Amino acid sequence: MSNKMKSAAIFGATGYTGFELIRLLLSHPGVKFSVLTSEQYSGQPLAQAFPPFKGRLDGVSFGKMEELLGAKFDVAFLALPHTLSSSVAARLLGQGKVVVDLSADFRFRNIPLYESVYGVTHGAPALASKAVYGLAEVYREKIRKTRLVAVPGCFPTSVILGLRPLLAAGVIDAKGIVADCKTGVSGGGRGPKLGFHFPETDEGIRPYGLPTHRHTPEIDQELSLAAGKKTAITFVPHLVPMNRGILATSYSLLNPKRTAKDVEAAFRKAYEGETFVRMLPPGLLPSTKDVRGSNFCDIAWQVDEKTRRVIVCSAIDNLVKGASGAAVQCFNLMCGFKEDEGLKGMPLFP
Amino acid sequence: MSNKMKSAAIFGATGYTGFELIRLLLSHPGVKFSVLTSEQYSGQPLAQAFPPFKGRLDGVSFGKMEELLGAKFDVAFLALPHTLSSSVAARLLGQGKVVVDLSADFRFRNIPLYESVYGVTHGAPALASKAVYGLAEVYREKIRKTRLVAVPGCFPTSVILGLRPLLAAGVIDAKGIVADCKTGVSGGGRGPKLGFHFPETDEGIRPYGLPTHRHTPEIDQELSLAAGKKTAITFVPHLVPMNRGILATSYSLLNPKRTAKDVEAAFRKAYEGETFVRMLPPGLLPSTKDVRGSNFCDIAWQVDEKTRRVIVCSAIDNLVKGASGAAVQCFNLMCGFKEDEGLKGMPLFP
Amino acid sequence: MSNKMKSAAIFGATGYTGFELIRLLLSHPGVKFSVLTSEQYSGQPLAQAFPPFKGRLDGVSFGKMEELLGAKFDVAFLALPHTLSSSVAARLLGQGKVVVDLSADFRFRNIPLYESVYGVTHGAPALASKAVYGLAEVYREKIRKTRLVAVPGCFPTSVILGLRPLLAAGVIDAKGIVADCKTGVSGGGRGPKLGFHFPETDEGIRPYGLPTHRHTPEIDQELSLAAGKKTAITFVPHLVPMNRGILATSYSLLNPKRTAKDVEAAFRKAYEGETFVRMLPPGLLPSTKDVRGSNFCDIAWQVDEKTRRVIVCSAIDNLVKGASGAAVQCFNLMCGFKEDEGLKGMPLFP
Amino acid sequence: MSNKMKSAAIFGATGYTGFELIRLLLSHPGVKFSVLTSEQYSGQPLAQAFPPFKGRLDGVSFGKMEELLGAKFDVAFLALPHTLSSSVAARLLGQGKVVVDLSADFRFRNIPLYESVYGVTHGAPALASKAVYGLAEVYREKIRKTRLVAVPGCFPTSVILGLRPLLAAGVIDAKGIVADCKTGVSGGGRGPKLGFHFPETDEGIRPYGLPTHRHTPEIDQELSLAAGKKTAITFVPHLVPMNRGILATSYSLLNPKRTAKDVEAAFRKAYEGETFVRMLPPGLLPSTKDVRGSNFCDIAWQVDEKTRRVIVCSAIDNLVKGASGAAVQCFNLMCGFKEDEGLKGMPLFP
Repeated sequence: MSNKMKSAAIFGATGYTGFELIRLLLSHPGVKFSVLTSEQYSGQPLAQAFPPFKGRLDGVSFGKMEELLGAKFDVAFLALPHTLSSSVAARLLGQGKVVVDLSADFRFRNIPLYESVYGVTHGAPALASKAVYGLAEVYREKIRKTRLVAVPGCFPTSVILGLRPLLAAGVIDAKGIVADCKTGVSGGGRGPKLGFHFPETDEGIRPYGLPTHRHTPEIDQELSLAAGKKTAITFVPHLVPMNRGILATSYSLLNPKRTAKDVEAAFRKAYEGETFVRMLPPGLLPSTKDVRGSNFCDIAWQVDEKTRRVIVCSAIDNLVKGASGAAVQCFNLMCGFKEDEGLKGMPLFP
Repeated sequence: MSNKMKSAAIFGATGYTGFELIRLLLSHPGVKFSVLTSEQYSGQPLAQAFPPFKGRLDGVSFGKMEELLGAKFDVAFLALPHTLSSSVAARLLGQGKVVVDLSADFRFRNIPLYESVYGVTHGAPALASKAVYGLAEVYREKIRKTRLVAVPGCFPTSVILGLRPLLAAGVIDAKGIVADCKTGVSGGGRGPKLGFHFPETDEGIRPYGLPTHRHTPEIDQELSLAAGKKTAITFVPHLVPMNRGILATSYSLLNPKRTAKDVEAAFRKAYEGETFVRMLPPGLLPSTKDVRGSNFCDIAWQVDEKTRRVIVCSAIDNLVKGASGAAVQCFNLMCGFKEDEGLKGMPLFP
Repeated sequence: MSNKMKSAAIFGATGYTGFELIRLLLSHPGVKFSVLTSEQYSGQPLAQAFPPFKGRLDGVSFGKMEELLGAKFDVAFLALPHTLSSSVAARLLGQGKVVVDLSADFRFRNIPLYESVYGVTHGAPALASKAVYGLAEVYREKIRKTRLVAVPGCFPTSVILGLRPLLAAGVIDAKGIVADCKTGVSGGGRGPKLGFHFPETDEGIRPYGLPTHRHTPEIDQELSLAAGKKTAITFVPHLVPMNRGILATSYSLLNPKRTAKDVEAAFRKAYEGETFVRMLPPGLLPSTKDVRGSNFCDIAWQVDEKTRRVIVCSAIDNLVKGASGAAVQCFNLMCGFKEDEGLKGMPLFP
Repeated sequence: MSNKMKSAAIFGATGYTGFELIRLLLSHPGVKFSVLTSEQYSGQPLAQAFPPFKGRLDGVSFGKMEELLGAKFDVAFLALPHTLSSSVAARLLGQGKVVVDLSADFRFRNIPLYESVYGVTHGAPALASKAVYGLAEVYREKIRKTRLVAVPGCFPTSVILGLRPLLAAGVIDAKGIVADCKTGVSGGGRGPKLGFHFPETDEGIRPYGLPTHRHTPEIDQELSLAAGKKTAITFVPHLVPMNRGILATSYSLLNPKRTAKDVEAAFRKAYEGETFVRMLPPGLLPSTKDVRGSNFCDIAWQVDEKTRRVIVCSAIDNLVKGASGAAVQCFNLMCGFKEDEGLKGMPLFP
């Protein structure tokens, strides 16, 4: 596609990822909004759902999805529940549109696995093989050529960016990987629940989803592809009393004869020249604060000589690199924009 | 001045307002950085003081103030301690530079009052009369014509924007105004102190500086000018366990025969067409979350008929509209840029 | 009543005030639990609703209110919705029981006012005149002699303790009082709502209920009684991103000829010898952190000479002195225990 | 020793563990305070350092350590810097006193290891062999008989309580253990530092001390003793934006032929009848919120069948079970009190 102005639609625009998409795309010189859908806020102006937007896009109102599926636009971002997302994607692709899907529907190469993990019937299995997993640092060229991208899950992004280079280079053992992840509460969505009620959440940390969180097979899929053999990670997420951010601390074992030098080389090879992955200099460790509001993934690592264990720490903003930022990054590749367009904002600190 | 590229210097760049200036100016198409000074981080790269900036401005290091006072640049932003700031300003103005001063040095029209409030001798009293108080919504035309702006204090900005239109229109009584303000902790600066140590701050709220916080005379100066008579506000700041934001809740009395309609008219007159002041529609109240990271000031008001009291609530981000954003807004006016250049970012939510 | 062991029932035990009642009463040597009711958790053990209680009261399960109204116990604490509370109170009083009601039902001496403020029909108007307002520092002797206490609202407690002595002593003007209050989120109850969802609440402060929060007439009732004339306060609550605590900052005007000495004398007279009201020494200001988890109310004040305004700051834990602690304090008076039994815990800091 | 009243001294009473000791001991019926030392607050009353204590112990002031070493008291709690602590302990033991040491000085059975880890010379090596590691659930009988207890580190307590039973029963492999720990900020002490400054800490999570935090050898010491062979854990701590609490998530491998049933049996054997360790029922996971302010350690576990990995989650309050509560528990054993005296308080929730 050419580099001219694109009109964008966001389906399911009133969750946190929808908000973040709008925020990012408002800073994108090549995008104009044409369609925002929300069943709950249908007919209401944008600022009703998101008061921070008062004064911007004041003329834009939410419509109902069904009514807007046939509207005129170039690109659709889908922030819809899974299964619904794939069926909408199928219709939009049939109209020749570009689709960036933030649901889990097209992340799996193995449909039965997807169906078993999510407990549903896939809405468009025929399309699954055409979708590209939207991790630009890995699949950049494929993303450029597709019209359907599956934006990776937030936890998978943090873990895969931290471990994939080491598995691809054979530096660490494919067995025995542990990924201990910590997430801010926006990862749980915008629907009020007791578990995310402020007084139940503030001043506490707790694990959840143990031991079979549905992001586990997604991580294993990508790490296995990198390793050329089946990985079986143990993944445990924890809820941290903060709004945004994921920190992944991953533990793996150096393969025989491999050393810290190999770790360094693998990361350099993977990320040299990457805009959004920042390898920290020795002595620095990542903090989710340092990436908040930005599309960066900060990575540091150390080898624990005593145990030959490699510890990799990676930090992202779950709503940016872990969702809407990655979506914009893919959109840029798919539509011929510079990869960082709309993603130039520095982290908000403090 | 013309609308070409400007080279900017930030003196005292390693506090929170310095960081925020850099963040905002990085999104400004008409600015390039030439000088950043920091006594503490002298010789070190930007990312050493502010890890969030890794990967941007990697070639830029901090220098010492004295060494860089004569460097080549167009505009200086001063984030220096008071009294030092005014003497530096004097030297830079002498070189023909444009100066945006974030200290308190040039905020007062009355030098003896300044000296008594801050307990110091003014560093450049002769310049005070040439400085313009950098509240663009009030002094826009004067700011366009000056080379020296005093960026208002954070609390004064929140209170003055909320009350000035009502005093200017004679809607409220100049006597008997109470401003109860709540601020995030970044307002206390970046220097570690017991009072801002995390465990002493989190999960608590407390007043401070009672009853003679030095922002009081600054607020009175501007409100008195608006009212055409001397005001005497009672101002009490409170520390809230959050990083950013100021909420001002101001209480005043309707003048005889004045009604809610007059309040509405006064605000409409003052802020119609303003980009950064958002009058909320009836039923909505401001939250600091809705402006975080942006240059907006959100205002709502209500008349308590029982007491004829007008309650005005105004919310800003203390580091943006309350400091660095206001500085950039003034810089735009002084240098012929569009007023919102570098300030287009939407609030980060959540 | 004599000082022997009392059996206690808590009706509506699964909100935050219910939890706090259990926590406090577990440390009370003269209380044993016989009945806990919860419609939602009926049939389930205590720790199911409140995991922190695992290992204590393991044999105790929740029952349904209707089934337990006739059970054998001495004292009932009612943490029920208003109107339901008064009708339950009526039945229990008819059985000869002692009732400590945490709802608003019996706080008002004026039934039509109550009905207009809460928009309901009172469930037991005949009893209202028999109820004592459960502010022990004011109504201690009456509380000792009654079988029905209305525990004050959380905001009213913080404001009344701070202003009542000054009005009773004629030190401040009954007109023109402003109470600007800040509360932790537990004050909003345990039911998940968007407004208390963690990502909508953390890192922000906002006003609410403006200008007619229903605690206003409750405060005016008690302040008017103290002043001997009608007060008309302006009361604005704000939501602070923390779990517990209320800070009230109250602004009023010194009467002619009155000075700071009169303020001091009024407070000394009111609170000398009080266990739970702590007048801070000069130079200290209250923080909600300093009272968290305890039944203390910390008070400091200052006179702003310029405006002759008295600023009173008072801090309580909304769930203790603002609800369940006050309930236990009243219970102690009603049943002949020492007033601080069950309330000896020091604040949890940090 | 007999069960009569004990007079207690706290040396170094003005940090968070000192405060917490005072809070807990104030609820202990068998303790009276005779001595509180603080170099910083010497000569000042308790409430000056800790405003929450206003109104309690008002007559008690801090003294200087040197002047009070010879005072009359039965038991000393040492909350002093390491190396100073051991030399003070030596002098007090020489006077026949009971010593509960909260520093690291007597935690190590291997003095050279201690000296290498802490980079100091031990202050009283001869005493080290007489000290008992104060984990009551493991060394109860030894603690009863000693006059010198070393209170375990906060992280070690959380990890050891979670893993020791499994190693002692041979259920898990001694190799390949990972302990990923998350702590509240009070664990970093009360001294203001940039890393614990509120705006640098709130809304972020980050690892630190990687990979050689000095709690690692302490954990290995105790786990090796349990396993009967050398363990080599990988331990990574993380800083969470909350005041209190540690959550340890530990990953280890089931030994051949061992199953979940063996895990369950090992925990039951270890903790049946224990007051302060709460094994959670299936389906529940620990949260630091559920133990805050209490001496509980909550533990849950799951076997990840796919990887044969055992995931153990354990939560404590770092200032209670992780420091001052453990100290009181040991004191009770040493002085013949019931083990839970002074430790009966339920968690403060929310």
